[in-house]
Amino acid sequence: MAATNTTKTGQPFDRDVLDSLLRRTGFYMPSFEIYGGEKGLYDYGPPLTALQSNFVDLWRKHFVLREKMLEVDTTIITPEPVFITSGHVAKFADFMSKDPKTGEIFRTDHLIKQVLGARLKADQDARGQTIEVEKPDEPQKKKKIKDVKIEKLDDAVAQEYNETLAKLDNYDGEGFNELIKKFDIKGPTSGVDLDPPKPFNLMFQTYIGPSADKPNGYLRPETAQGQFLNFQKLLEFNKQKMPFASASIGKSFRNEISPRQGLLRVREFLMAEIEHYVDPESGKKHEKFEDVKDVKLTLLNRHTQLAGSEKTEVMTVGDAVSNKVIDNETLGYFIVRIQDFLLKLGIDPSKLRFRQHMANEMAHYAADCWDAELFGSFGWIECVGCADRSAYDLTVHMKKTGAPLVVRENLPEPRKFKEYQVDMNKKKLGPKFRKDAKAVENAVEDLSQDLREKLSLELKDSGKITIDTPNIGNGKTELDKDLITIEQREVTQHIREYTPNVIEPSFGIGRILYHLLEHVFWTRSSESQDEPSARNVLSIPPLIAPIKVLIVPLSNHLDFKPFLRHLTSLLDEMDVANSIDDSSASIGKRYSRNDELGTPFGITVDFQTVKDKTITLRERDSTKQVRASQEDICAAIESLVRGGCRNLQVKR
Amino acid sequence: MAATNTTKTGQPFDRDVLDSLLRRTGFYMPSFEIYGGEKGLYDYGPPLTALQSNFVDLWRKHFVLREKMLEVDTTIITPEPVFITSGHVAKFADFMSKDPKTGEIFRTDHLIKQVLGARLKADQDARGQTIEVEKPDEPQKKKKIKDVKIEKLDDAVAQEYNETLAKLDNYDGEGFNELIKKFDIKGPTSGVDLDPPKPFNLMFQTYIGPSADKPNGYLRPETAQGQFLNFQKLLEFNKQKMPFASASIGKSFRNEISPRQGLLRVREFLMAEIEHYVDPESGKKHEKFEDVKDVKLTLLNRHTQLAGSEKTEVMTVGDAVSNKVIDNETLGYFIVRIQDFLLKLGIDPSKLRFRQHMANEMAHYAADCWDAELFGSFGWIECVGCADRSAYDLTVHMKKTGAPLVVRENLPEPRKFKEYQVDMNKKKLGPKFRKDAKAVENAVEDLSQDLREKLSLELKDSGKITIDTPNIGNGKTELDKDLITIEQREVTQHIREYTPNVIEPSFGIGRILYHLLEHVFWTRSSESQDEPSARNVLSIPPLIAPIKVLIVPLSNHLDFKPFLRHLTSLLDEMDVANSIDDSSASIGKRYSRNDELGTPFGITVDFQTVKDKTITLRERDSTKQVRASQEDICAAIESLVRGGCRNLQVKR
Repeated sequence: MAATNTTKTGQPFDRDVLDSLLRRTGFYMPSFEIYGGEKGLYDYGPPLTALQSNFVDLWRKHFVLREKMLEVDTTIITPEPVFITSGHVAKFADFMSKDPKTGEIFRTDHLIKQVLGARLKADQDARGQTIEVEKPDEPQKKKKIKDVKIEKLDDAVAQEYNETLAKLDNYDGEGFNELIKKFDIKGPTSGVDLDPPKPFNLMFQTYIGPSADKPNGYLRPETAQGQFLNFQKLLEFNKQKMPFASASIGKSFRNEISPRQGLLRVREFLMAEIEHYVDPESGKKHEKFEDVKDVKLTLLNRHTQLAGSEKTEVMTVGDAVSNKVIDNETLGYFIVRIQDFLLKLGIDPSKLRFRQHMANEMAHYAADCWDAELFGSFGWIECVGCADRSAYDLTVHMKKTGAPLVVRENLPEPRKFKEYQVDMNKKKLGPKFRKDAKAVENAVEDLSQDLREKLSLELKDSGKITIDTPNIGNGKTELDKDLITIEQREVTQHIREYTPNVIEPSFGIGRILYHLLEHVFWTRSSESQDEPSARNVLSIPPLIAPIKVLIVPLSNHLDFKPFLRHLTSLLDEMDVANSIDDSSASIGKRYSRNDELGTPFGITVDFQTVKDKTITLRERDSTKQVRASQEDICAAIESLVRGGCRNLQVKR
Repeated sequence: MAATNTTKTGQPFDRDVLDSLLRRTGFYMPSFEIYGGEKGLYDYGPPLTALQSNFVDLWRKHFVLREKMLEVDTTIITPEPVFITSGHVAKFADFMSKDPKTGEIFRTDHLIKQVLGARLKADQDARGQTIEVEKPDEPQKKKKIKDVKIEKLDDAVAQEYNETLAKLDNYDGEGFNELIKKFDIKGPTSGVDLDPPKPFNLMFQTYIGPSADKPNGYLRPETAQGQFLNFQKLLEFNKQKMPFASASIGKSFRNEISPRQGLLRVREFLMAEIEHYVDPESGKKHEKFEDVKDVKLTLLNRHTQLAGSEKTEVMTVGDAVSNKVIDNETLGYFIVRIQDFLLKLGIDPSKLRFRQHMANEMAHYAADCWDAELFGSFGWIECVGCADRSAYDLTVHMKKTGAPLVVRENLPEPRKFKEYQVDMNKKKLGPKFRKDAKAVENAVEDLSQDLREKLSLELKDSGKITIDTPNIGNGKTELDKDLITIEQREVTQHIREYTPNVIEPSFGIGRILYHLLEHVFWTRSSESQDEPSARNVLSIPPLIAPIKVLIVPLSNHLDFKPFLRHLTSLLDEMDVANSIDDSSASIGKRYSRNDELGTPFGITVDFQTVKDKTITLRERDSTKQVRASQEDICAAIESLVRGGCRNLQVKR
């Protein structure tokens, strides 16, 4: 399915028009604007804040309540050791290149992409024209690039550029540095050689407590770790039953090198994450898979992408799992639930696809990953990740802390088997290795059964063995038979112990909301005289619309006031968000203003109301109007606003 | 009204019993516990997370929707200049004292309080016994204090100690240092002299962007500043209408020197704040005051406290405002709305009072402040502040940035008056004062009318004037008549421009939830045989209870399964949070477990259900049971769960 950049009514989509609408009507604004702004930080004004809280409410009902998930609220501030263990301190980084002359800092991969892209474009144009590239530090301003290479390229060079761009995700700092030298990439505004690329960790640092003299903590880049650290308690809360899921909604942070693309790449953002814990030996079956197996999905798998294509396939999730396109039922079930949720929100189904990650683009912890991508004016953008994190996180935290982040399951029948067991003489171990004793012990415990078998023979033969101990002395440690025994023994197991695998649906709420706004935006050409001729509309579904009802008196006539008060209190009692616009603008103008805010219903109070207490209800998308009693109309609105939640059938 | 530390059924309240219940049932846990924990950070488990999200939902309905407030979501990360302007960089600090021998850091005021308190206690006991004080860094552990002064005190000394303690909030670093020397206070574990007290800013620092080589931002300590910075846009969104309120719910942070008291003094916490903007010349009237004027409040005013008493008075808010106990209607209206909200939540009305701040304890920005204090096992604790921040914040940000954070109002009649106006010759000003020119200009503009009158005469007489310019040279600047003219002129004003005052109700959500749990906790002695004899109950109101319904099958009999599935999906459709407990424990045990979780309703599926499809509904507080059809009982539950929100009448 090829998504096209048009509104739902087939008009070409114009991002500038939507963006100016969103800023003018207070959906969002750059944070600290009166102080000159701060890149990558945005404040949500009243309409977007309400939309976001309705999103969160719906998400909780759709996932937490329906799936009986265990929602937790863990802290943003996280001490450093947690992220050392999780791998984020070492690996959660982008490379940056500094221009020594101007002091500008560029995200290295973006810079290479821009420069090679610009050269390829110049080549295509086959003219030595000046190309404009975005200066990452100031996304609003375009800067002319100084690049000696703006000319027609050899075919071989052009091909090399294209190949390099295709696999840019595979490079590290050294690799980037070689590319920069090889392709003679200079500072884009200065023309001088750049400093070699350096990794920049994307976590915000902070100082916890009054005695910290260097940063000792981070703002979390995801809510996941807080959930993993509580695994044991959550399993207990769930009365030791597997599988189960935890969930969390909260702010996370990434200190982006050069934030851009408005609400899509920001430094502070709201996430909703689910960690579904599953027995790896269960085949990752899901008990409700049968209920969803006929739901169709639009998929772009890894193999298609490897073949250089973006062609999606539509298939049922049942077929996708049985054909191993999607690895297992649990992953498939969540992909369906994610799709259901996005469509309930009002996402355009033709602008939704699920794309499997290539091996080289997965996060360091992931074993498989499908993204829900939404199409908009920035192209296809990842908005929900659905990753199989395998047992990675629980394993590393358990290893580091010794906390039993495992499931213990009574076996229906005891299991008997033979295994090589190691006993160490701890009385002698301590005095001999002192501070390294624990590390030696760990290294021994980590020995595989195969190695243990080999070492047991060696120990019998020579009375001593040598094992690898990477962090101690020369990396080898000798142990003699006074210190260690290795024997094969028969074991009877009554309890099975295993580390669960984790399937993680992870929602970037701001990205989804931004795409929703693109998808529901269109322009109406009105034929009615008292409404302006071309009007922007946000067709946000009533279920999540920021304000549900606008109450509009025909004029400022005093006779209307009691009706306004009555109607607003009637709706307030129903917890239906409403507002009154008694300004002097024409009714058409007042409705038009609220079409831009996505308000689905309008109520008019006029002289007929004063006579017979009836009011007019106007529906935003059709502009159709009906007249009825105040009570009937308010009840109808309540049911439309709530009904969306209970009865909406997802259609594809 | 003297609050007593008993449960609602009159039993003595035992904090240890509640605390162990809350930890055992997963309400909360110390964050990063498997890494040894991190002081002042707690994770909320499933029951408390659900309770918190129900709190937020109710808060939004009660305040944002009903009062048509403009909710915004602004960023946590804040660049330094904002908090320099707001005064937080200079003033949002506590003093800390370091023990040079042990490296321990103490919050200075707490240390003085503890030591003097310990001496006074020793004096009372009239024996030189060893006193135990809390060591702030390790609140769990009590340490013996080394203090040479443990003996009977002279009457004059004891009186001086008491007086010092009463006014401890008035001291700064120098003052604390003098107290420490005067009273010979030493390091409590080492007995050596402490380093002089140093201010420790309570904001967490961070580094924004890749080029920051020193901290250039903070995590906000309140949501308020984000709201103030958007004032202009919010006023525009409100179509220039005054008064109006903005609101925000989000995490804030305080890097406490020594966190303690569990959930009450933490480093990361959820706040809900309202900034109500009001015309200072309106007398701060409120249009809905008439509706609430007969509501009774329990008040502890400033005068009573100055007289050394804690005696509260019960009076209507109407009387309180007309007697000027509460300064104005707007403050009074919000105090009533805060009380309504707290009672809806389930706060015990006998454990709620409103206490006016003393002049010396108000934050640097506040003009008046009433706290809603809740009584619990830690005494009376501030849980909601209701401060009049006057025009402080908007004024300082406007002055710093030049952004017009003001209201402009068309006057019904033009206003004519005379005023002294200043004109400066900017062409000469710049070259003469260079970088200081702007500062000189600002100093001139800030001159009062009285001063302008005086200076205009001086300028006429001597041809030059001298004005105060504190930050330039010697603090005085001379200006001659080439540079400045001052004249009285007649002005006609068509527009009135003013900076609104701000009334700020600010909710510490964790503190309120903790007190709620204390207030709804009690122990039932059951006479029924199949229920354990003494059982803990959390009588959380259905409206905000984490889980509303527990579904319990009599046994694991297969015939019950379809009913469990039907009931859970019936309740799911109604968005009523429910869970199934089909474990093998007795029904009494299963209910008892859920009484501890505050689940208000239980449904039993038994053999009668299989016969006639009826089920039993059990109510948590009374343990009364009724039998009816599945549909009737689910509908009744839905209405009880929602009805609380719409129909609950607040009684005092």
